[in-house]
Amino acid sequence: MKKTVIDKLHTHLASEMSKVNSLMRERMQSDKVELIGNIAEHLINSGGKRIRPILTISSAKLFNYTGTKHIKLAATVEFIHNATLLHDDVVDRSERRRDKKTANSIWDNKSSILVGDFLFSRSFKLMIETNSSKILGILATASGMISEGEVLQLSVSKDLRTTTSTYYEVIRGKTAALFSAACETGAYVGGASKKQVEALHKFGDALGICFQIIDDLLDYKGKNPSLGKNTGNDFKERKVTLPLIIAYSKASKEEKKFWKRTIGKGEQKPGDFEKALDILNSRGTLEATYKVALYWSNLAKENLRKIPKSVTRDLMEELCDYVISRVS
Amino acid sequence: MKKTVIDKLHTHLASEMSKVNSLMRERMQSDKVELIGNIAEHLINSGGKRIRPILTISSAKLFNYTGTKHIKLAATVEFIHNATLLHDDVVDRSERRRDKKTANSIWDNKSSILVGDFLFSRSFKLMIETNSSKILGILATASGMISEGEVLQLSVSKDLRTTTSTYYEVIRGKTAALFSAACETGAYVGGASKKQVEALHKFGDALGICFQIIDDLLDYKGKNPSLGKNTGNDFKERKVTLPLIIAYSKASKEEKKFWKRTIGKGEQKPGDFEKALDILNSRGTLEATYKVALYWSNLAKENLRKIPKSVTRDLMEELCDYVISRVS
Repeated sequence: MKKTVIDKLHTHLASEMSKVNSLMRERMQSDKVELIGNIAEHLINSGGKRIRPILTISSAKLFNYTGTKHIKLAATVEFIHNATLLHDDVVDRSERRRDKKTANSIWDNKSSILVGDFLFSRSFKLMIETNSSKILGILATASGMISEGEVLQLSVSKDLRTTTSTYYEVIRGKTAALFSAACETGAYVGGASKKQVEALHKFGDALGICFQIIDDLLDYKGKNPSLGKNTGNDFKERKVTLPLIIAYSKASKEEKKFWKRTIGKGEQKPGDFEKALDILNSRGTLEATYKVALYWSNLAKENLRKIPKSVTRDLMEELCDYVISRVS
Repeated sequence: MKKTVIDKLHTHLASEMSKVNSLMRERMQSDKVELIGNIAEHLINSGGKRIRPILTISSAKLFNYTGTKHIKLAATVEFIHNATLLHDDVVDRSERRRDKKTANSIWDNKSSILVGDFLFSRSFKLMIETNSSKILGILATASGMISEGEVLQLSVSKDLRTTTSTYYEVIRGKTAALFSAACETGAYVGGASKKQVEALHKFGDALGICFQIIDDLLDYKGKNPSLGKNTGNDFKERKVTLPLIIAYSKASKEEKKFWKRTIGKGEQKPGDFEKALDILNSRGTLEATYKVALYWSNLAKENLRKIPKSVTRDLMEELCDYVISRVS
């Protein structure tokens, strides 16, 4: 199998990532309650790509950082990410993630909620060890945006009048906020200038938005089971994502009726998802969505090029292509 | 109606508490998502006694503090408390709290989980505004203990072999950790000496433990609907609390069989709760539990007396009696 840029990044950052993994293993345990470590381990060791910690470590490495704060920050962002996954899986009643059973289906909702809270508190402990109020500010803002994005997503789901701008607010919160915080804090501890920190923030933001648009596209297009995503989930759950927003804006009278019934009212019958795919394909909606993702991937690259060239920068640029390539 | 010490404290601290309330009202809102403010307001304005913010404000006032950090800390601890309530109500499937419908029953579990996360992130933002790594350390430790206590409670529920020491670990986490952090951080920003900060920590810890023991006792004894608690909940949910631990340690063979059936196996039939009450009363278990609570209330007072006498200290001492008096 061809090596992806994720593999290359794991090789390039092997020494740092091994420290991140040890630190996470250590900090996800509780002296008092064995169950906490079991649940946290199940999730954290279940084959995620570690994109967020990779972003933190490489953002620091861009500036030849040799300290240890980026290790703590990388573990912090991965803990925050996993805490939100635990809560999301309860919220979405998911049974599988990354082709494995979710914690809420092996244990229960209660434990998933509380172990999520535990990981939040551990991420908090890690970030304050960096002893930087700037870092704390960035991560506090990101945490706030994540929950705002998730609640906003709840309040606009099933609503066909959702605008593109609301969609961006949702995905900026639920995905891009942590991507940009991962990059920004890495660059900051790495010793980047103010302008460079800003560039890395924008890089992470654009990459996160691109990542989420592709995720939403894959929900209508993904055929690769290795992605661990089930096609058709968003349609079933009546989530109004970019493909649907574009399709609805171009819809004929007949098609509008179809979307109102299936998404607005939730009256779905067998064959409806296939019909949705037909409409999306015939209207070039999936193509149009892909083009939007491409725009964000290019914007990410543009910001990256404000940093001096290096092996690390090249790999981060390749990552922008990789995120897009998941769809083809 | 006779004025309680809670009323007196609200009068004594009126100017500070009004600032705490404004700050909370401001910070519980989200610019982007109206639903967040609605849910947070429903909970925060639903008639809680604000014991934790009172503890923070009065702990600072003991040392004649005149700054503003204690206002932020008071809002912080109340946000953390309310975030845990939102998650607890989902975990416990509660429908009523303080005689009002819970957020999860008016809105849904999803919103309760996510708005809880939002309040955590806002509490985090508030505490970093105090610009003190000592404060952050105290609150990070407390947050970790809260989730550990809650998970531990899940893992030992239904288990009649639960020891007193495990019970203390649970309630120290779920209740006392935030009480002691509220007092400790208040004293610290108030300018207390190291020994005084430690005394306030111990005061809060003992008061929190006493508070939770009385809560657990009320679940078998409470008749006052104004408490907003439903008697018999712990029995129904098979939570192994102090009254039960004491009763089981003294139980006859016959009684052991009863507890094993109702708590261990969860086979409960009409009349079982009344029978449980009979056993608890005949064995003097409720009396014994009350005496343990009294011990902690006295320990709280002892630590308080390490601080110079003042009107504030007198009211805090009266609070130790009040917590106990809820049961009579």
